[in-house]
Amino acid sequence: MLSIIMTGGSGTRFWPVSRKHKPKQFLNITGNGPMVVETCDRLKSLAKDDEIVLILGQEHLPEARKLFKDRNVHMLAEPIGRNTAPCIGLGAIYAQHLGREEAIAYLPADHYIGDPNTFIEALKVAGELANSGGIVTLGIIPNRPETGYGYIKRAKNALSEFGKFKIYKVLKFVEKPSYEKACYYLGKGEYFWNGGIFLARPAVILNNIREHLPDLYKGLMDLQKSFETQDFDEKFKSVYEGLEAISFDFGIMEKTNQEVYVLPCECGWSDVGSWGSLYELKASEYDDQQNLVAGEALLIDCKNSFINSRKKRIVTCLGLTDCLVVDTEKTLLVADLSHSQDTRKIVAELKKLGKDDLL
Amino acid sequence: MLSIIMTGGSGTRFWPVSRKHKPKQFLNITGNGPMVVETCDRLKSLAKDDEIVLILGQEHLPEARKLFKDRNVHMLAEPIGRNTAPCIGLGAIYAQHLGREEAIAYLPADHYIGDPNTFIEALKVAGELANSGGIVTLGIIPNRPETGYGYIKRAKNALSEFGKFKIYKVLKFVEKPSYEKACYYLGKGEYFWNGGIFLARPAVILNNIREHLPDLYKGLMDLQKSFETQDFDEKFKSVYEGLEAISFDFGIMEKTNQEVYVLPCECGWSDVGSWGSLYELKASEYDDQQNLVAGEALLIDCKNSFINSRKKRIVTCLGLTDCLVVDTEKTLLVADLSHSQDTRKIVAELKKLGKDDLL
Repeated sequence: MLSIIMTGGSGTRFWPVSRKHKPKQFLNITGNGPMVVETCDRLKSLAKDDEIVLILGQEHLPEARKLFKDRNVHMLAEPIGRNTAPCIGLGAIYAQHLGREEAIAYLPADHYIGDPNTFIEALKVAGELANSGGIVTLGIIPNRPETGYGYIKRAKNALSEFGKFKIYKVLKFVEKPSYEKACYYLGKGEYFWNGGIFLARPAVILNNIREHLPDLYKGLMDLQKSFETQDFDEKFKSVYEGLEAISFDFGIMEKTNQEVYVLPCECGWSDVGSWGSLYELKASEYDDQQNLVAGEALLIDCKNSFINSRKKRIVTCLGLTDCLVVDTEKTLLVADLSHSQDTRKIVAELKKLGKDDLL
Repeated sequence: MLSIIMTGGSGTRFWPVSRKHKPKQFLNITGNGPMVVETCDRLKSLAKDDEIVLILGQEHLPEARKLFKDRNVHMLAEPIGRNTAPCIGLGAIYAQHLGREEAIAYLPADHYIGDPNTFIEALKVAGELANSGGIVTLGIIPNRPETGYGYIKRAKNALSEFGKFKIYKVLKFVEKPSYEKACYYLGKGEYFWNGGIFLARPAVILNNIREHLPDLYKGLMDLQKSFETQDFDEKFKSVYEGLEAISFDFGIMEKTNQEVYVLPCECGWSDVGSWGSLYELKASEYDDQQNLVAGEALLIDCKNSFINSRKKRIVTCLGLTDCLVVDTEKTLLVADLSHSQDTRKIVAELKKLGKDDLL
């Protein structure tokens, strides 16, 4: 199955380890290698290397080439980030350029999947359904009232079952909810997290774009003729410069008249959205006081803390609770773990202070 | 007044800034220069430089010489540390060697005094009393039920008054109390902290040593003859090797039949015994969230925290409460401020791990 790996984004959530020129998807966050490589490796039984297309930012091309230097994955480097709708359209026209009309999978490059087997099985089932038309999303079964994700509401009854998977019609896409609503969604059982993973035939994607984002469609058609011509880079740039930045969820998914399906999936998914969420993920590596240590550290009377030392020096900790320490060559972050989703505040402040070398 | 500055001790309480070869008394802890220099400067109106005697450890002599290179203070470098009784005896025989028979002051090198004027006035009054015999200690008026200090219990009624100072007989010296006892002492009003500051004539000191620590007396008499002879260094070493390590409080003060007096004194004293106690001391430098910052740091949503950055890099902090961060070239300490008196635990553990370069 042709797989489009969405490798854009300049994430500040793992600052100071993630940096402008090396965002999360290029980092070894979970300990299994750079996330984008792990994402591709996970697809082994689904897509050969030349069935993988990385869509990434121009500025990250050198890093991606380094990581994939012995592998013939395709790479499309967007000249400017324009959010997900253009990226997904680009994937669709590139698939057609490669002569692939069957369903393709769109996958974020920087998510963690605890149970890859179930995940791949789910993609295969979803792919079959998507081949017969419609857009199929994976629905992540929520386990907490998360207010940081969009939700997918399914219909009451399943349309069909494939082995352990059920398929439902999607009733609606819901933007990030309030805490109260998130609690309601969790209790109701008919809402799933939107992990941004979906499958569809390229033509289905493009038909939707033609209908709901006609300017984008025009740009894509313009660009499609230039693949593998000398003009491509220039055309890529001029088309993208003219595009509006808009997300696929907002521009298409919430408006489409197309049938949209959801396949609920329990595959140990995490978007690893913060140091705190990485800490939660690595529970199997805790010491007996629920501390998680990467690198060299000495902990005395500490609990529930996450020490990440990237320097060749020892970090010593005394009496800490719920603390995050990230020690890098250039800077040091010390935070309360429950505040770790706010690293962007630090990055914003450093930007104001003109500390560009730390961004 | 001849003043003996007790400059020994290898303190681990300000680790990682204090190190084996540069303990607290040689560090600029309070921001006013190295503590031993501040201690000497404070005496300006009491003792000329050549009336100051530093007694310090052999290993710290180079550092002391550097700090006092343009000043003719006396220095006696003990070949081995033997606790305070030998050090105080040494001060007494050296005073006699200098021809000083009147009362001398013994002062720790590493204490902070917030109100030096009152302190010096108190020393002058205490010195006059000590000249007429007896040992006079300064009593630090407690403001919390501290369990880390010894206490001095005064008699009910004052013996005399000198201006704003009262003098009491000491009923007893009390070792570090339990929390319950410390609360009782605080409420009772007849107990003072023993700050290790006292005054007496050299002969009084030596008479007491002769009576209660005869072996030490013998050693001191042996040593006294050698001052400024060629044999001195060798004699110093051989005498000290034969001495028992014992504190003056335990060996003399708790046993003496001598009259001992206490002069209660409100002079903003602090032994600056930990990072936490330094934080308390510097309240005037807090930001509006009670954070104290030395060096370059960026704090977001932090309160009651103490950031001490000794590196040329920025420390970033997010959502911290009651946190201590000490960033040095070689290592990093992150601690809960209320645990900061336990840095010795870190030092002990590093020693076990063979990390001698960090001690």
